[in-house]
Amino acid sequence: MQQGLFITFEGIDGVGKTTQAVQLKKSLEVQGKEVLHTFEPGGTQLGQQIRALLLNPEHENIQSMTEILLYAADRAQHVYEVIRPALAEGKIVLCERYVDSSVAYQGYGLRLDINAIKDVNQWATGGLVPDLTIYFDADPLYSLAKTDGDRIEQRTIEYYNRVRNGFLEIAENEPERVIVISALGTRQEVADRVEQVLKGRLG
Amino acid sequence: MQQGLFITFEGIDGVGKTTQAVQLKKSLEVQGKEVLHTFEPGGTQLGQQIRALLLNPEHENIQSMTEILLYAADRAQHVYEVIRPALAEGKIVLCERYVDSSVAYQGYGLRLDINAIKDVNQWATGGLVPDLTIYFDADPLYSLAKTDGDRIEQRTIEYYNRVRNGFLEIAENEPERVIVISALGTRQEVADRVEQVLKGRLG
Repeated sequence: MQQGLFITFEGIDGVGKTTQAVQLKKSLEVQGKEVLHTFEPGGTQLGQQIRALLLNPEHENIQSMTEILLYAADRAQHVYEVIRPALAEGKIVLCERYVDSSVAYQGYGLRLDINAIKDVNQWATGGLVPDLTIYFDADPLYSLAKTDGDRIEQRTIEYYNRVRNGFLEIAENEPERVIVISALGTRQEVADRVEQVLKGRLG
Repeated sequence: MQQGLFITFEGIDGVGKTTQAVQLKKSLEVQGKEVLHTFEPGGTQLGQQIRALLLNPEHENIQSMTEILLYAADRAQHVYEVIRPALAEGKIVLCERYVDSSVAYQGYGLRLDINAIKDVNQWATGGLVPDLTIYFDADPLYSLAKTDGDRIEQRTIEYYNRVRNGFLEIAENEPERVIVISALGTRQEVADRVEQVLKGRLG
């Protein structure tokens, strides 16, 4: 049934996921491919409103459980409204953040039950797993310096180090799906790494 | 740890849950009990905004999966911010709608996976189960005639019949927890039934 290709970009904020997605989309389109560039949270109209709830600093007493479920709700809507239809049309879907972000941020970062997060997301996505995930790795001190200060980004460096270790552990556990590349260097240097991975993996 | 008493009121819209909760609260307070009257969805400030998303007719393409997860997110926030603290203070919590509503509406009504709904909610609530649930039963044609027409209430009578059957099946499966009473009759007649159930069950 699924004819397209589902690629996710993961990594902490400021690491260059959007820049690289834009560049990869252009490069694939030059090769004649149809590409959809999307992101989570907020990849749908409803998701934008869920995202606004999640990032609103007034909601400082939001429970971790609530947060996980809101991200999963955003994801369910995104999968069924955007990702699955695009894959069914044979498109390449480039999605910034997906289930791995929930596992890394809420599971490893906030130390919540990783298996429960996986179960909820398995259910939210109907089991849709990316064909390929590129994780952009960098020391949080490097990437955080580039971002502004909304609610999530005010959390501590220790937290981001746990998140980073989470992403690295996910990649270690699923080497067939997740490729780690360094986020350091110029935009073009990183883009070259991405293209190399795609060539190596997808031909 | 839990010292209070957790009572939920269930039933389709228009069946008199709010009226009865207000009356029972007064009656219990006359007996010197501390009572918290609350409801789902929207029992917290964040929940009000989640409720607004759920009931917004503009979101007509909301996915069933998304809907279930948004209700669970609302519930998680409500349990941890409102219900558990009140129970810890020894209060009687009267809550309109809880997990049974998700099972009856989304599971039986929309024919989604009932076990999955239970799992997500088990996790969202941290396993908090009511001490007593009163289900107000009436033919949907009776109760729907009294309500206005937001998105959910435009669904068909067949749907509401499935929801009603769902509530009745839940009660049949958990007779120790769920008591069915007729929602028909005057306000005072129904209130008398509620008081009888409480006397019989809780002394």
